[in-house]
Amino acid sequence: DFLAALEEVQPAFGVSETEMNQMVKNDIWHFNMSTGRIIEDGGLFVKQVSHSKRTPLVSLLLHGPPDSGKSALAARIALNSNFPFIKLISADSMIGMTENAKINRINKVFEDAYRSTFSVVVIDNIERLLDYVSVGTRFSNATLQALLILLKRSPPKDRRLLVIGTTSEKAILDEMGVTSAFTVDKNVPAIQSLPELFKATRELDLFSPQEEKLVGARLEPLKSRLSIGIKKLLVVAEMAKQAADDEMTESTNKCDEFVQAVYQVCG
Amino acid sequence: DFLAALEEVQPAFGVSETEMNQMVKNDIWHFNMSTGRIIEDGGLFVKQVSHSKRTPLVSLLLHGPPDSGKSALAARIALNSNFPFIKLISADSMIGMTENAKINRINKVFEDAYRSTFSVVVIDNIERLLDYVSVGTRFSNATLQALLILLKRSPPKDRRLLVIGTTSEKAILDEMGVTSAFTVDKNVPAIQSLPELFKATRELDLFSPQEEKLVGARLEPLKSRLSIGIKKLLVVAEMAKQAADDEMTESTNKCDEFVQAVYQVCG
Amino acid sequence: DFLAALEEVQPAFGVSETEMNQMVKNDIWHFNMSTGRIIEDGGLFVKQVSHSKRTPLVSLLLHGPPDSGKSALAARIALNSNFPFIKLISADSMIGMTENAKINRINKVFEDAYRSTFSVVVIDNIERLLDYVSVGTRFSNATLQALLILLKRSPPKDRRLLVIGTTSEKAILDEMGVTSAFTVDKNVPAIQSLPELFKATRELDLFSPQEEKLVGARLEPLKSRLSIGIKKLLVVAEMAKQAADDEMTESTNKCDEFVQAVYQVCG
Amino acid sequence: DFLAALEEVQPAFGVSETEMNQMVKNDIWHFNMSTGRIIEDGGLFVKQVSHSKRTPLVSLLLHGPPDSGKSALAARIALNSNFPFIKLISADSMIGMTENAKINRINKVFEDAYRSTFSVVVIDNIERLLDYVSVGTRFSNATLQALLILLKRSPPKDRRLLVIGTTSEKAILDEMGVTSAFTVDKNVPAIQSLPELFKATRELDLFSPQEEKLVGARLEPLKSRLSIGIKKLLVVAEMAKQAADDEMTESTNKCDEFVQAVYQVCG
Amino acid sequence: DFLAALEEVQPAFGVSETEMNQMVKNDIWHFNMSTGRIIEDGGLFVKQVSHSKRTPLVSLLLHGPPDSGKSALAARIALNSNFPFIKLISADSMIGMTENAKINRINKVFEDAYRSTFSVVVIDNIERLLDYVSVGTRFSNATLQALLILLKRSPPKDRRLLVIGTTSEKAILDEMGVTSAFTVDKNVPAIQSLPELFKATRELDLFSPQEEKLVGARLEPLKSRLSIGIKKLLVVAEMAKQAADDEMTESTNKCDEFVQAVYQVCG
Amino acid sequence: DFLAALEEVQPAFGVSETEMNQMVKNDIWHFNMSTGRIIEDGGLFVKQVSHSKRTPLVSLLLHGPPDSGKSALAARIALNSNFPFIKLISADSMIGMTENAKINRINKVFEDAYRSTFSVVVIDNIERLLDYVSVGTRFSNATLQALLILLKRSPPKDRRLLVIGTTSEKAILDEMGVTSAFTVDKNVPAIQSLPELFKATRELDLFSPQEEKLVGARLEPLKSRLSIGIKKLLVVAEMAKQAADDEMTESTNKCDEFVQAVYQVCG
Ligand SMILES: Nc1ncnc2c1ncn2[C@@H]1O[C@H](COP(=O)(O)OP(=O)(O)OP(=O)(O)O)[C@@H](O)[C@H]1O
Ligand SMILES: Nc1ncnc2c1ncn2[C@@H]1O[C@H](COP(=O)(O)OP(=O)(O)OP(=O)(O)O)[C@@H](O)[C@H]1O
Ligand SMILES: Nc1ncnc2c1ncn2[C@@H]1O[C@H](COP(=O)(O)OP(=O)(O)OP(=O)(O)O)[C@@H](O)[C@H]1O
Ligand SMILES: Nc1ncnc2c1ncn2[C@@H]1O[C@H](COP(=O)(O)OP(=O)(O)OP(=O)(O)O)[C@@H](O)[C@H]1O
Ligand SMILES: Nc1ncnc2c1ncn2[C@@H]1O[C@H](COP(=O)(O)OP(=O)(O)OP(=O)(O)O)[C@@H](O)[C@H]1O
Ligand SMILES: Nc1ncnc2c1ncn2[C@@H]1O[C@H](COP(=O)(O)OP(=O)(O)OP(=O)(O)O)[C@@H](O)[C@H]1O
Ligand SMILES: [Mg+2]
Ligand SMILES: [Mg+2]
Ligand SMILES: [Mg+2]
Ligand SMILES: [Mg+2]
Ligand SMILES: [Mg+2]
Ligand SMILES: [Mg+2]
Repeated sequence: DFLAALEEVQPAFGVSETEMNQMVKNDIWHFNMSTGRIIEDGGLFVKQVSHSKRTPLVSLLLHGPPDSGKSALAARIALNSNFPFIKLISADSMIGMTENAKINRINKVFEDAYRSTFSVVVIDNIERLLDYVSVGTRFSNATLQALLILLKRSPPKDRRLLVIGTTSEKAILDEMGVTSAFTVDKNVPAIQSLPELFKATRELDLFSPQEEKLVGARLEPLKSRLSIGIKKLLVVAEMAKQAADDEMTESTNKCDEFVQAVYQVCG
Repeated sequence: DFLAALEEVQPAFGVSETEMNQMVKNDIWHFNMSTGRIIEDGGLFVKQVSHSKRTPLVSLLLHGPPDSGKSALAARIALNSNFPFIKLISADSMIGMTENAKINRINKVFEDAYRSTFSVVVIDNIERLLDYVSVGTRFSNATLQALLILLKRSPPKDRRLLVIGTTSEKAILDEMGVTSAFTVDKNVPAIQSLPELFKATRELDLFSPQEEKLVGARLEPLKSRLSIGIKKLLVVAEMAKQAADDEMTESTNKCDEFVQAVYQVCG
Repeated sequence: DFLAALEEVQPAFGVSETEMNQMVKNDIWHFNMSTGRIIEDGGLFVKQVSHSKRTPLVSLLLHGPPDSGKSALAARIALNSNFPFIKLISADSMIGMTENAKINRINKVFEDAYRSTFSVVVIDNIERLLDYVSVGTRFSNATLQALLILLKRSPPKDRRLLVIGTTSEKAILDEMGVTSAFTVDKNVPAIQSLPELFKATRELDLFSPQEEKLVGARLEPLKSRLSIGIKKLLVVAEMAKQAADDEMTESTNKCDEFVQAVYQVCG
Repeated sequence: DFLAALEEVQPAFGVSETEMNQMVKNDIWHFNMSTGRIIEDGGLFVKQVSHSKRTPLVSLLLHGPPDSGKSALAARIALNSNFPFIKLISADSMIGMTENAKINRINKVFEDAYRSTFSVVVIDNIERLLDYVSVGTRFSNATLQALLILLKRSPPKDRRLLVIGTTSEKAILDEMGVTSAFTVDKNVPAIQSLPELFKATRELDLFSPQEEKLVGARLEPLKSRLSIGIKKLLVVAEMAKQAADDEMTESTNKCDEFVQAVYQVCG
Repeated sequence: DFLAALEEVQPAFGVSETEMNQMVKNDIWHFNMSTGRIIEDGGLFVKQVSHSKRTPLVSLLLHGPPDSGKSALAARIALNSNFPFIKLISADSMIGMTENAKINRINKVFEDAYRSTFSVVVIDNIERLLDYVSVGTRFSNATLQALLILLKRSPPKDRRLLVIGTTSEKAILDEMGVTSAFTVDKNVPAIQSLPELFKATRELDLFSPQEEKLVGARLEPLKSRLSIGIKKLLVVAEMAKQAADDEMTESTNKCDEFVQAVYQVCG
Repeated sequence: DFLAALEEVQPAFGVSETEMNQMVKNDIWHFNMSTGRIIEDGGLFVKQVSHSKRTPLVSLLLHGPPDSGKSALAARIALNSNFPFIKLISADSMIGMTENAKINRINKVFEDAYRSTFSVVVIDNIERLLDYVSVGTRFSNATLQALLILLKRSPPKDRRLLVIGTTSEKAILDEMGVTSAFTVDKNVPAIQSLPELFKATRELDLFSPQEEKLVGARLEPLKSRLSIGIKKLLVVAEMAKQAADDEMTESTNKCDEFVQAVYQVCG
């Protein structure tokens, strides 16, 4: 029982490094200009939280299409802060919990954060935390209300907090008043041009320059509606590689598979 | 209590062979081209899961009209993988369970899967798992949210997972964001031409060549809207056989019954 | 407690004869052609279940207007099967039960059926089991989902099951996907012509030939919209008899009362 | 505890005379033709239940505008039957009960009725039993379902039951399928003509012939839309009397008050 | 426990004088004709309840805009009756109670009333008791049903009951069938003319004749849409007085503040 | 346990100074005319509560766009009253509480207030207390009903109470009848002109006169739709400062960042 007591008394200090590193497991590649800008902006917020006394709470919402890299960037900014308290709030670890248990867990992370002078809390995939589904516009209002309060509640005296949220359902968060409860929001775009796309595939050593030309030519007609998240591109590339291993006519297969998959993704 | 403890500690390794074999109990016949292609594609996914380090989670949704053979194909692909952990999630064994119990059971299968290096999880008849009914568009949002999380949650380090889902309600799954939570989705079509139909009936030794001609002639007018799932065809064929046994004028009866039933099925 | 244990262990084998016989208490009269055909078709299904190995589960939905004789026919077919396990699922014995208790009871009947090699389960008045009301389209989705699963779930190896359902709300069952979960559905019509009507009243010795002529003449204008269920006809006939007993001018009264009641029933 | 046991074992036989008599406390006056006809029809049903073996369950729904005398007539018919078991189901004694407790109480009355060879059950004010309100069309579906079952469930062998229901919301009961679950329904009209009205006031010795003439003249313009329930008329008459007692100019006051109140009631 | 028993046995006789007097704490002023008429009508109802044997239950609904004095008038009539049992049902003392606790409390007051030969029950602010809000038309249907029953349930033999209700949401009560469950309903109007308004302010010694002229002139343009409840007028007058105390230029300030406030109230 | 008893007996007298001071932590600057007027009006209400016997309950609703300073002003007025009982009701400390616990806590604050002769209760951010979200117009009706009662319930004899509410969702509160339950409501505007804006930035020593000119010029085009809450301005100013510290070209960066942020805020 001493242990139990201890557990209760001890603030949950520390950094959830494993989780965060897992979120950036495939590195961050600078295949477009947004990436750099968002990470820098994140740095500025970290500084503001560190220095400004008038604004002890600053929050940043990263939004963008599915698979565009929001979670990785949020984790990156959080880890870059070097704050002593860095915690992740994610629905991944809350499956089957009651609405109330979820709210208490979320609230607990904030309470713990208030015990450290400088803290970062990442709220990943907010729509999932809210049990949101567009069919019938269902969601957990209780969780939403808790979030709305937490995003505006001042930390206690001399405590500073940076909150980073991610979502791919910005429109509904706007309607719910979540977006405006954040200090600032930034868009994380999908890959939308061939140069960006190839910058990414080069990181994976997927295509030879020749293959790149071929693939580029075949994707030409798609150009105007090209839109593929970096995370999706990773899967597509791996699938293409698999096809390559499979047969002798490796190269053709790989390019075929890749081009076909990109077309399917972009509808 | 030692036993209880053991039970808890022991990962639920193993293959649910009985269940899976039950799902393909009438074999897979290659009466159309889709069958082969889907099984091959399934094989590719198995390979990707086995080899690619960047994509430890791959998922495949098989959708198509009722009775088209989705469950059988999912079981086939799963069994072909020869992975040490193969499990089935199906509403069949969850009648009368609370929403929460269902979610915990589903989550448990995934947690168990994470303990094996290579795993396949088959989620059969997703709409039924979600308690979906089109009247008033009702469904279990809690179960849906759990599925959405599980379909995107990365397995722990060095664990690989292939998820295969089946549904005959793709449209609503699209709206719910389930389809896009899968890596890829494939259509399993019903029998839609007379040659396909007879390829199937031949496997059942239902008609003599002469009878086939007769039946073919009588089904001619239906051609443009012929659409009958392989599972439905099995029942119709058995009913026809029954009529045959019943009377002396076997053949006529059998063909009559068959033709009439096919007409009824295709509305 | 031994008894309790016994009760639990002992499969609920046996035939619910009293209930079933109660359902056909006024006999089945062949006042139209449907009656015979439905009973024969039912016999064919019994045969298929008995003989076909590929189709261990066959199900038949009897639908038609209120009072048309659906329950009596379902009971008749079930009793005719001579299967060792024949059970009735009906809302009549479930008043005041929770949704969950109902589902468990229903599931239990199927589980019990699986223990017998050959079984018939009659699900009477499905809309009532589902707590369906058209006002606001309310119903128990949990019970519906259980039914949808049970109607498609394969019995265990070497077990055969015939399910017979009845309903007077086919349209909504169509929308709910219940109809298509049955293998086949058959219509049980109301009495819709004078000859049919008199075939039935003759079984009751209601009218003398002269009275029949009189009544027939007076019902002539109703002909095009005559529609009265056999069960309703029984009550109307009894009411007419009562009026007859009541006064001296028996015959006139009886015919009057009868004609008037039939007009009222047919709106 | 012996008493408790006794209470449980003893069937709730007997007649709820006090309640029933309370319902007809102001007598039944024959101010119109419906009154007599309904009571006679009720008598016929009593006879049918007593004599016909084929129809052990007969039910009658009395509907009409508020205050038209439905409950009094239902009680009258029930008491006239002289059956050994006569029970009232009314929301009056169920305030604050849970939906389930209500359903069990209702079911209990029917179960008790089945223990007597001949029984009458009066279900008063069905819309109130169903917690019905037109705003948002709310009602207790569970109670509705129980009623629908009870109104069609056959009593056990050799038991006969007459059910009499009352309602002033026939339209919604039609939609709910309650009306058609009754064997027959009869309308109980409000007072709709001056002669009927004065037949009633004469029973109360309200007006002298002269006053009657006066009042009749003043109500003339209302004639086409005159509609006042007998129960409402009783209150209005009493109010008029009060005004009379109040002042010296009794008569004028009384007539004034009466005429004015009738105008107000008829909108 | 003896005390507990006593408490249970002892009828809750007596008059809730404090509460009722609190409701008329600022007296009733006769600033318009309605006031007198309503109090007299109330007296008539008291008489009817006292004398008429046929109508042991009479009920009166006072409705009107917010602040128009409904509660004060209800309390006045109740106190004037000098009945031995006078009780108030009000949401004020039911904050945080469950729906069921509220219903039981309400029912209890009626049950207690039935133990006294003559009783008055005041149901204040019915819409609040029903948890009514126009947004989404929400309300407690269970409480509504209890009220509907209680307003029509006859007291036991030889018991007489007068019920007085108040509401400022008559329209919705009409729709809910509450209004028609009352025997009679009366309107309590707001102050709608300058003479009425000044009759009221004179009771408060608010204005000198000169000030009155000034204020009257300035309120002239408002005349056609002047509508201010007596309770609101009391606050406005007190606010105006405050402004007067505040500065040297008392009178001007007072009139200014008053005029301005009245304009604001009347939108 | 003695302590527990004490706690229960002891009225929760006293002032929640820390909380209130926290709410005005950045001071109140008089950058526009509303600020002064609202604080003075607040003073008048305090006086009315102190002196008028007829109006022991006065309430004031401060409404305005997000961040406009509502909470700070409410706290200011409350603290200025020097009443012995000053309490804050805020959703900030109610995360995860059940609806009922919230209602009881709110009610408790009022009950405590009634024990002091003079009290102020601040209800901050009413929409959050009501769990309001515009998506589907959800809110806690139970909490709303409690508020509606509390805002109109008279304090006990000789107790005086001032209630100050704040909200940025006035429209829905109007619909809910909350606004009209307050005695008076006042608007707290956002900064809507450049002079106001610079009055505020001067308090922060943000810009040199030269910079001010520059910034003013660049914000010129925004003039007609300038609208930024004072609290938002504080964050924006701090962000601008941060940018300044960051680089050598301080001034330009600061102004750039500021102008850009203001444009973003004003959409
Ligand atoms: N520039 C980049 N920005 C973000 N992620 C990148 C970038 N370059 C590579 N990645 C990799 O891409 C993946 C992005 O996945 P991530 O989970 O962050 O996407 P997401 O937008 O959060 O997806 P979801 O919509 O499913 O939440 C990560 O594995 C990350 O390491
Ligand atoms: N090419 C084929 N593909 C799939 N199933 C086949 C094929 N050939 C034969 N079968 C047999 O057809 C049946 C298909 O039934 P299955 O349960 O898989 O259909 P389903 O589409 O899942 O139906 P439901 O819509 O009811 O879920 C199985 O018994 C299977 O053995
Ligand atoms: N040909 C017939 N078919 C069915 N029932 C018949 C026939 N001839 C006579 N009957 C008698 O008619 C009655 C039919 O009642 P049954 O309860 O089966 O009707 P139902 O359609 O199920 O009514 P409900 O719509 O109320 O469920 C039974 O008493 C049965 O004995
Ligand atoms: N011919 C009549 N029919 C019915 N009631 C009559 C008749 N003559 C007199 N009465 C008296 O009129 C009253 C009718 O009230 P009753 O409660 O039956 O009306 P109701 O229609 O049930 O009202 P509600 O709509 O409120 O349920 C009774 O007191 C009854 O004694
Ligand atoms: N003629 C009058 N009628 C009613 N009340 C009067 C009259 N003259 C003075 N008053 C005073 O006016 C106040 C009326 O307030 P009351 O609470 O009755 O209004 P209400 O209509 O019930 O308000 P609400 O709509 O908030 O329920 C009381 O303080 C009462 O003493
Ligand atoms: N004139 C002013 N009025 C109000 N607040 C001011 C003023 N001048 C400076 N402030 C400061 O501005 C901030 C206003 O924040 P406050 O929380 O009151 O805004 P709010 O309108 O309640 O915001 P929200 O909409 O989020 O509830 C406080 O820090 C306060 O000290
Ligand atoms: Mg993400
Ligand atoms: Mg399937
Ligand atoms: Mg039936
Ligand atoms: Mg009645
Ligand atoms: Mg009032
Ligand atoms: Mg605020």
